[in-house]
Amino acid sequence: MRYPHAIIAVLFLALQPCLAQTDYEPSETNQPGKEYPKVDSEGRVKVEVLAPEANKVQLDIGGVKYDLTKNDEGVWTGESAPQEEGFHYYQLNIDGASVPDPGTKYYYGAGRWGSGIEIPATDREIYALKNVPHGRVSEQLYFSNITQAWRRCFVYTPPEYSKDTNTKYPVLYLQHGSFEDETGWASQGKANLILDNLIAENKAVPMIIVMDNGYAYKPQDSSTEGNRRPQSAFEEVLIQEVIPMIDAEYRTKSDRAHRAIAGLSMGANQTMRIIMNNLDKFAYYGGFSGTSNYPTSDKIDTKTFLNGAFDDGKAVEEKIKVFWLGLGTKEPDPFPGSVGAFRDMLEEQGIDHVYYESPETAHEWLTWRRSLYQYAQLLFK
Amino acid sequence: MRYPHAIIAVLFLALQPCLAQTDYEPSETNQPGKEYPKVDSEGRVKVEVLAPEANKVQLDIGGVKYDLTKNDEGVWTGESAPQEEGFHYYQLNIDGASVPDPGTKYYYGAGRWGSGIEIPATDREIYALKNVPHGRVSEQLYFSNITQAWRRCFVYTPPEYSKDTNTKYPVLYLQHGSFEDETGWASQGKANLILDNLIAENKAVPMIIVMDNGYAYKPQDSSTEGNRRPQSAFEEVLIQEVIPMIDAEYRTKSDRAHRAIAGLSMGANQTMRIIMNNLDKFAYYGGFSGTSNYPTSDKIDTKTFLNGAFDDGKAVEEKIKVFWLGLGTKEPDPFPGSVGAFRDMLEEQGIDHVYYESPETAHEWLTWRRSLYQYAQLLFK
Repeated sequence: MRYPHAIIAVLFLALQPCLAQTDYEPSETNQPGKEYPKVDSEGRVKVEVLAPEANKVQLDIGGVKYDLTKNDEGVWTGESAPQEEGFHYYQLNIDGASVPDPGTKYYYGAGRWGSGIEIPATDREIYALKNVPHGRVSEQLYFSNITQAWRRCFVYTPPEYSKDTNTKYPVLYLQHGSFEDETGWASQGKANLILDNLIAENKAVPMIIVMDNGYAYKPQDSSTEGNRRPQSAFEEVLIQEVIPMIDAEYRTKSDRAHRAIAGLSMGANQTMRIIMNNLDKFAYYGGFSGTSNYPTSDKIDTKTFLNGAFDDGKAVEEKIKVFWLGLGTKEPDPFPGSVGAFRDMLEEQGIDHVYYESPETAHEWLTWRRSLYQYAQLLFK
Repeated sequence: MRYPHAIIAVLFLALQPCLAQTDYEPSETNQPGKEYPKVDSEGRVKVEVLAPEANKVQLDIGGVKYDLTKNDEGVWTGESAPQEEGFHYYQLNIDGASVPDPGTKYYYGAGRWGSGIEIPATDREIYALKNVPHGRVSEQLYFSNITQAWRRCFVYTPPEYSKDTNTKYPVLYLQHGSFEDETGWASQGKANLILDNLIAENKAVPMIIVMDNGYAYKPQDSSTEGNRRPQSAFEEVLIQEVIPMIDAEYRTKSDRAHRAIAGLSMGANQTMRIIMNNLDKFAYYGGFSGTSNYPTSDKIDTKTFLNGAFDDGKAVEEKIKVFWLGLGTKEPDPFPGSVGAFRDMLEEQGIDHVYYESPETAHEWLTWRRSLYQYAQLLFK
């Protein structure tokens, strides 16, 4: 049977409202060979799972639970409202069990290994896997005498590191957020690809990046008995164990002028304390969606805040070559308030800083990928 | 209230049958902070999952599905029969949905990222994380012109590699099995820890290990249209792209006397073909639970098998310094038959080989960890 072109055109127009919702593509975070989940051009997430005997299956993403519907073969399917661009953690709920979607790769965040999905961002080129020279991400195991435990960091070395074996490199220590771990930055954070691309375009100096785990406790401090919050030993581990190990194992420039530190959220808070306690060791700070006055938005008293570390603004200015802060425009409370109060303090103390706003992103990885992209361009220059 | 000691002793004895089943410990493959799954000293696996609205939840391990039972809080729990020692893939079934256990870390095997569990083995010291110098596992991204796709391998460098920057090292190319990928050997395979331990005890020569993905297809061959099995391009990728890249990026001894190749199951089959086609490039072969005559146990005709590669036994003997085969004593058909037929052929051709049997293990990772432990000690000596 053949239809005149005009009729086909009319049919096509009539079907437009349906077609508009059918540009779903398999997500780039899917496991090999898996068709679902899919993402459409407006950021909707569509999932599919076989659960023939289930009563209720939901897609749980962005704080909303979407009911799925079952077909005759026992396959449940459904879609979310449009999501913000970038990376999101999510899960499925099957009769009340919160489980990973068997279709995706898994990421550590929100305190568990679970599903993640990528809504392609307008500026995804900054972290795309491109035909440029690539550095390496290496797993470094070490025994911490301070915590009396085996720990692990990941180390990015730039593309030329293995070729030009006499050159030494500056180092950025880069930390994850709460309920995340040392795997975050080189997985969902794409730190390696961001640097590969920046270095290829001569926008960033080739550098080593060290990504450790911000959770560290001494054996006697690791219990949470009596609701006592355990005392973090991360600063001690980083300063006394990780930095000396990295300087011994890698070809680093080991003076303060060639060492930077940055972190996201909890990591921004931690690394700000660390740099202010160790100005002899770092010359660059980056706080992505966080500061050490978190969670309050009260005016900061520089006499007491971080033991008066910002009280002599001029001294801070002289020591820290780049003081960098970033925030997504859609971040929820208390982040805008506490970062705002911190910036007010810097202003009053006459401490110059760079402030970057990530358009249309929340307290999520696209904010932090963009922050690293911006921040890394200012380092060691 | 106080009881005389005698009564306590009697109570203790009376409770023994119950106590015998209560030595469950959280599995070493659990996510941080997760109590379940647990493993007992007899190899039982006990799982727990919250699924208040579910009708039926099962633990699916070792080819058997065990029904769980629900308590008043909607928590399902249950245990398996004793499992063999070593690493096993498994999953949960929640109302017919096969999903990862949210308690464990995830591993790529059986064609999916999913749960894995470790039953502590009697000889677990060979792959334990010990206080010895540790090498690094690095992720190497590369664009393959042959497959027109980005690919990835993991590269183990021995502990001293970063210190003594003039030394060159021999290289072992080590392949995974079917439905696994390049992550397997340095994750559930523990190849890095096995080598760290062997090197620390001077039982193995320090070596580089390259773990690539055995699935590789040219763009025109990647479809499975009309049930046509796509033609593997892995040999071309390994020989023409991976080996030259590794020799350029790492400090390797790049002659055949310092290059070995081994694989497990599908990887044993693949790497046997590769070495016999490239005797100018490799001097050592390891086949863990596999050979290229798989799956048949028929007598091998050396005139036709692998294009006559074994027909001149003396020439093979001269070229291959160690020809190594391993198998678990509990491996199912067709592995014992096809490996047996292959060994008969070697015998008839007068080709010397090492044959290792892993006690009480099946077609699983403990067989392959032990195989690597044995094989690596014979290399490059």
